[in-house]
Amino acid sequence: MSDIITITAPVNIAVIKYWGKRDEELILPLNDSVSATLDTNVMCAKTSVCARPDINENEIWLNKIKESFNNKRLQNCLNEIKRIARVQKSVDEEFLSWNVRIYSENNFPTAAGLASSAAGYACLVTALAILYKIKTDISTLARLGSGSACRSVYGGFVRWHAGVKPDGSDSIASQIANSLHWPDMRVIILVVADTKKHTSSSKGMQCSVATSELLQYRVLHSVPKRVDDICTAIQKRDFAKFAEITMKDSNQFHAVCLDTYPPCVYMRDISHSIVEVIHRYNEICGEVKVAYTFDAGPNACLYLLEKDVPEIISLIKQVFPTSNPEFIKGLSTQESQDRDFLNQFPIKPFEKDLLKYLIYTKVGDGLQEITDGSHLLDINGQPVG
Amino acid sequence: MSDIITITAPVNIAVIKYWGKRDEELILPLNDSVSATLDTNVMCAKTSVCARPDINENEIWLNKIKESFNNKRLQNCLNEIKRIARVQKSVDEEFLSWNVRIYSENNFPTAAGLASSAAGYACLVTALAILYKIKTDISTLARLGSGSACRSVYGGFVRWHAGVKPDGSDSIASQIANSLHWPDMRVIILVVADTKKHTSSSKGMQCSVATSELLQYRVLHSVPKRVDDICTAIQKRDFAKFAEITMKDSNQFHAVCLDTYPPCVYMRDISHSIVEVIHRYNEICGEVKVAYTFDAGPNACLYLLEKDVPEIISLIKQVFPTSNPEFIKGLSTQESQDRDFLNQFPIKPFEKDLLKYLIYTKVGDGLQEITDGSHLLDINGQPVG
Repeated sequence: MSDIITITAPVNIAVIKYWGKRDEELILPLNDSVSATLDTNVMCAKTSVCARPDINENEIWLNKIKESFNNKRLQNCLNEIKRIARVQKSVDEEFLSWNVRIYSENNFPTAAGLASSAAGYACLVTALAILYKIKTDISTLARLGSGSACRSVYGGFVRWHAGVKPDGSDSIASQIANSLHWPDMRVIILVVADTKKHTSSSKGMQCSVATSELLQYRVLHSVPKRVDDICTAIQKRDFAKFAEITMKDSNQFHAVCLDTYPPCVYMRDISHSIVEVIHRYNEICGEVKVAYTFDAGPNACLYLLEKDVPEIISLIKQVFPTSNPEFIKGLSTQESQDRDFLNQFPIKPFEKDLLKYLIYTKVGDGLQEITDGSHLLDINGQPVG
Repeated sequence: MSDIITITAPVNIAVIKYWGKRDEELILPLNDSVSATLDTNVMCAKTSVCARPDINENEIWLNKIKESFNNKRLQNCLNEIKRIARVQKSVDEEFLSWNVRIYSENNFPTAAGLASSAAGYACLVTALAILYKIKTDISTLARLGSGSACRSVYGGFVRWHAGVKPDGSDSIASQIANSLHWPDMRVIILVVADTKKHTSSSKGMQCSVATSELLQYRVLHSVPKRVDDICTAIQKRDFAKFAEITMKDSNQFHAVCLDTYPPCVYMRDISHSIVEVIHRYNEICGEVKVAYTFDAGPNACLYLLEKDVPEIISLIKQVFPTSNPEFIKGLSTQESQDRDFLNQFPIKPFEKDLLKYLIYTKVGDGLQEITDGSHLLDINGQPVG
């Protein structure tokens, strides 16, 4: 039997969105995308893998529940890693014949729609690459599991290059700046109370590629300039520019979803109310202090600087009142003492509990191997606990 | 004193949307638009005007309330009509020196956000053109009041040509087909319960022109082809094609609004729920039987054929239950007897009273002069009643 390999990987939140594939099989995107990687101390996926001669089939557990291994993307990842191992002769044929056991969990609710598959696949392929001792670009492997997973390989700010080659060998992620580059950048995720089923992003983007007339314009004209501009803004730590591009790109991504036929609608009334609050706040401040961005779901992700966190958290709690005593999760923070500012804010409180909770976090490092022995599988290859 | 002139004018609902001006002053649009004119028996504006030597200033009443005449668009309309009257010498200088009194009302709630200004301005300029005995293109005058008002001049299906001339002389409306051409075309307006203030369409489109990268693509590429295609669909009475283009153009218009910075959001959760119900209904039917379209507000306008009205009204009442005993307004209709179909519809009822009421109407004629003496001003120029 093999050693147990355990990896933690971060969630990433795109500021230039990935929407639309040029190759469905290889998961090659139509456009470059850019994201920030979030602190694994607050949100992460953790995966343990092992290979053993004494198990009859490949097995996987996600968040304590055994799932079917008969999942095309999962199989693609494992097959590609084994293929490389054969080419590189990094392990022997006997080892390659053994089945694997995979145990993965998130330290945050998957139901919240917080891009858990990116962190999960980044963990999985890294653990397997180490297990099979292969040398390759991990981001390329992660991409085969879930496109945006390739961006969870690195910390800080990351760019996923669409690439142009048909085999996808140039569709890789690279780091724009590490997690120490912009130390006061903070992220607040607003998890909304919403039970509506949304179209999966995989199906949604397929439908956009097939039907949206505006998508091509976005891919060819809007995104290339935005990617250049936001990379520059990140290098220069120009928050106002970074924030404006982030908001515009989120809006345009959802515009393309709406231009899809039938339309894909991910934002809800509550999401648009958050947008309105942020624009009004920036307007009152006379400068852009907070940016919103929305993935393929109704939750908002806010980017802001550490100095503005207390005021924004107080404002959010005022405008979206909560009955949840544990409303604020993640890093510890204070609330604002400036009652005058809050009292004069022109948007009246909405009804209670439109938000379930918020997660306060920051930009963090990429994936890491866990070497302290805290594996999710025991030495018999059984799930721990 | 002059005779009293009274006009009724219809509401029109665009199927190819007008969004964005190439000239703010002359109200010249960036793209052609297409609409159907709705039956004035169900919804109309009615306006009486007179000119008198014995009134000290121009006066206007809208829906029984006296409003300020100090309104740029209103003044533009009156000034332009008087200018033409001078050029054409259609009335004498003394008549031109008299002040006017205008009384206008709608037979439907203006608060419902049902494009009442189009009907109102179409009435107003027509009444004034008759008052001052001028000969000119009425649609051009109406356009000066409210862009889409030019389409309310004609009945049936109407195209507003964007034109290319800087003076706007070729930016006129023309009839594609009259109200008898497609006699079974019906319209259902779903008025949603919503109190949110939305950005005015005038401000919204100005902001889109200034900030939306996708608007130019829409104007240059999407709309020209759609206008051609929908004119052909109207000529051929091809409902499925007409409906598909209508839905796609509504979605794209709202996509452009969302791509605006800050975004303009007119549709609400309830609007998107209506969209979902219509797509699911068409899917189950195996053909496109109903189209939705949304203007700069949350209300839905459905286009469908008369034969499908009972089923759709029953479906709407089932999915969006109401406690309003007078839920159905407008033309009389029956409800569907096919309980099996309704019972099997896969979308469960939403909470009660998300819709206030629906208006059932049809395509109708353009504006008309009222000659039976039922004016809104009496012979002393005083508001009636």
